[in-house]
Amino acid sequence: MTMGEPSKILLDESEMPRRWYNIVADLPAAPPPVLHPGTMAPVGPDDLAILFPMELIRQEVTTERYVDIPEDVLDVYRLWRPSPLYRAHRLERALGTPAKIFYKYEGVSPAGSHKPNTAVPQAYYNAAAGIRRLTTETGAGQWGTALAFACAQYGLDCEVWQVRASYDQKPYRKIMIETFGGVVHPSPSELTGAGRAVLGRYPDSPGSLGIAISEAVEMAAGSPDTNYALGSVLNHVLLHQTVIGEEAIAQFGKVGLTPDVIVGCTGGGSNFGGLAFPFLREKLAGRMDVTIRAVEPASCPSLTRGVYAYDFGDTIGRTPLMKMHTLGHDFIPDPIHAGGLRYHGMSPLISHVYELGLIEAVAKGQRECFEAGVRFARTEGIVPAPEPTHALAACIEEALRCKETGEEKVILTALCGHGHLDLAAYGAYLAGELVDHELSETDLHAATSTLPAVPAPSA
Amino acid sequence: MTMGEPSKILLDESEMPRRWYNIVADLPAAPPPVLHPGTMAPVGPDDLAILFPMELIRQEVTTERYVDIPEDVLDVYRLWRPSPLYRAHRLERALGTPAKIFYKYEGVSPAGSHKPNTAVPQAYYNAAAGIRRLTTETGAGQWGTALAFACAQYGLDCEVWQVRASYDQKPYRKIMIETFGGVVHPSPSELTGAGRAVLGRYPDSPGSLGIAISEAVEMAAGSPDTNYALGSVLNHVLLHQTVIGEEAIAQFGKVGLTPDVIVGCTGGGSNFGGLAFPFLREKLAGRMDVTIRAVEPASCPSLTRGVYAYDFGDTIGRTPLMKMHTLGHDFIPDPIHAGGLRYHGMSPLISHVYELGLIEAVAKGQRECFEAGVRFARTEGIVPAPEPTHALAACIEEALRCKETGEEKVILTALCGHGHLDLAAYGAYLAGELVDHELSETDLHAATSTLPAVPAPSA
Repeated sequence: MTMGEPSKILLDESEMPRRWYNIVADLPAAPPPVLHPGTMAPVGPDDLAILFPMELIRQEVTTERYVDIPEDVLDVYRLWRPSPLYRAHRLERALGTPAKIFYKYEGVSPAGSHKPNTAVPQAYYNAAAGIRRLTTETGAGQWGTALAFACAQYGLDCEVWQVRASYDQKPYRKIMIETFGGVVHPSPSELTGAGRAVLGRYPDSPGSLGIAISEAVEMAAGSPDTNYALGSVLNHVLLHQTVIGEEAIAQFGKVGLTPDVIVGCTGGGSNFGGLAFPFLREKLAGRMDVTIRAVEPASCPSLTRGVYAYDFGDTIGRTPLMKMHTLGHDFIPDPIHAGGLRYHGMSPLISHVYELGLIEAVAKGQRECFEAGVRFARTEGIVPAPEPTHALAACIEEALRCKETGEEKVILTALCGHGHLDLAAYGAYLAGELVDHELSETDLHAATSTLPAVPAPSA
Repeated sequence: MTMGEPSKILLDESEMPRRWYNIVADLPAAPPPVLHPGTMAPVGPDDLAILFPMELIRQEVTTERYVDIPEDVLDVYRLWRPSPLYRAHRLERALGTPAKIFYKYEGVSPAGSHKPNTAVPQAYYNAAAGIRRLTTETGAGQWGTALAFACAQYGLDCEVWQVRASYDQKPYRKIMIETFGGVVHPSPSELTGAGRAVLGRYPDSPGSLGIAISEAVEMAAGSPDTNYALGSVLNHVLLHQTVIGEEAIAQFGKVGLTPDVIVGCTGGGSNFGGLAFPFLREKLAGRMDVTIRAVEPASCPSLTRGVYAYDFGDTIGRTPLMKMHTLGHDFIPDPIHAGGLRYHGMSPLISHVYELGLIEAVAKGQRECFEAGVRFARTEGIVPAPEPTHALAACIEEALRCKETGEEKVILTALCGHGHLDLAAYGAYLAGELVDHELSETDLHAATSTLPAVPAPSA
């Protein structure tokens, strides 16, 4: 027993960060511009104004180092923020490692993940701009839950297009969205042209995230009092998530430590960027010597095996073109249980930072990840969502490496959510039913061969 | 906005209570003894030693005011304790009440409820006594989850008999128990004489809590290295839960307030007693003037409409006889969604305190409770378990009374768990499918007419 060293490092509400951090201000090179899919010219604010309020568009392109968090957003954040930083004493003992393992836990939020960190400001800025309704898509349901909660705080209506297969198989997420006051439509739906077109050809379509995005965007574009909200990938989303890393820095300061290694899972990139970017600022400024490692599923390895190229953000190719690590916009990942990591691309900002050599990336198979998740649950008492089990697998790997070398490294893990609504995946793992999906070279080549042609940028 | 007044009152780990509080030491009259069902004489330690370790038996009957919490229990408690005390600013504003509403939140624990507060010490004392395995029953699954987690901390095996209907309908709870390393059997099972007897007559039996208790007790009684664990009702269980109230007193001390009204839901009584008893100590000592109100379901109103008499703790009548408020041991409550409140009796200690006039009790229908739960979720961001929605309904009633009178009362609510695994109940409520079950006079009379005959105590 080491009751002398705390297992929880808490911040007082008064220590909550008052501003978000924008990594763009400190990078040695600017990220490539986003291109209009028709003209191939960089998109301007007006191109985006049909979907987003001007303040979010401004945040998407700002080069200012910090953006103040509005008081009305802080008032909602404090329902669960600052989130706890835990020291995993019992996991360390079970592993027999000299490493010190810390995890920043975002499962204390209303949606049970980091998603409300951006859902709340997105709802706030839309309400402030006079918008009455937000639309979005959801796959597993995490993002839809977060946005429904956020909309309830500012009196906005919230409509969520949930992929039909998920809508039928995961009724709990739908009910949680409805409990927060949101309205859920199975996608494809009869409510949109995109949905009707799909249903006309495939009446029993199970839907896809690409179709759901098309429906949510169509509804927002067609109604002046309605906007659209996205839960990851974009710069303003990662900006909002930096409260995670800012808090963690303050928490480490309380115990006089800094992390040697940070591991986080990456799907769209918002959880990883939210924790890592403030630490990357410290690293770039020479104040911290830290290795930052992204962990992605072996079946959807956009950073470790994808190409760095301009591609669409959605499956059917209607969004602006973003330069990012991608497996190709029509790549359909194998059905692994970490639904939040099944995205063909990677946040352009994370991709850019990776290209600059500022972060590392590894890929993990899902069985190793669930093994880590079960180990973590039995020692630390939290059943993690399938997504952060990827970070936990890499964390345990690092801790066992320290056991061999005797290094007392400080490891920080992004535990971005609990798995209470993902227990079916644990059931499948415990029953020995999970398989690892490694992306084949043939499939990888096929997927990346349909990237859109983009002219070389003018000098 | 009132960012000046905090929404969370946190304690440091070093401020965690170091001892449990025993209300028996401060009551004006001793509680009636527990009787042996065969001899009708008070039970002694030896009668209980076949199921429980001697330290828990000692705690069951102790009259000492405080019991020290072992270091190895504190080391597990601190995974989630001290639990937060929240100020419900956003609920207050939505209600327009001058009352200050606080809630003590136990949903941060590994099982998502207050249950691990006693599961952990029960597992600890059994392991210290050389026991290798614990058995128990579970209805909805909360208690089974807590015990499985606790057993994993001390290297004990854990076997849970889950009521067949629940086993089939609530697979998530079963998976969560298994994730923590527990083994789950549907009850009735072929593993016990009790189970086989039921299956012999009713091969498709959906089971009952009474049958599951019989199976778990039979397995424990028949094996020297196996004990049985109970999640509520008994004195030592309520003793362990007093960490909740002790922390809350310290937390109110930090903001210079004391509660005027405390509301908590009561099933077996452990959540309510855990929060209320330390405050009752303060009230009995004249240091606090506080109204303490128990809230129970209108369909299972043991305190408000049951009789105060000796009765069995289980349905089939094999346990010792306890004097308590009861609806009769063969009373089968209507199938309301707050499974944790569907118990025919009430903790003997809570019953005794109620008879002494030290606490109040009210009953609520489930629709009012779910309405309160949804209101709470949309303002405070936590979807409560169905059980504490009863306390929230009474809390909102009190807050709206304050709105009429203008009183700025301080209300404290026991929010004993989250509802992430109870979303089907919210779905039924939102779909308008829930009905209120009021116990009829006829049914009440029938249920309480089969109480066991107990001779008058010798003077």
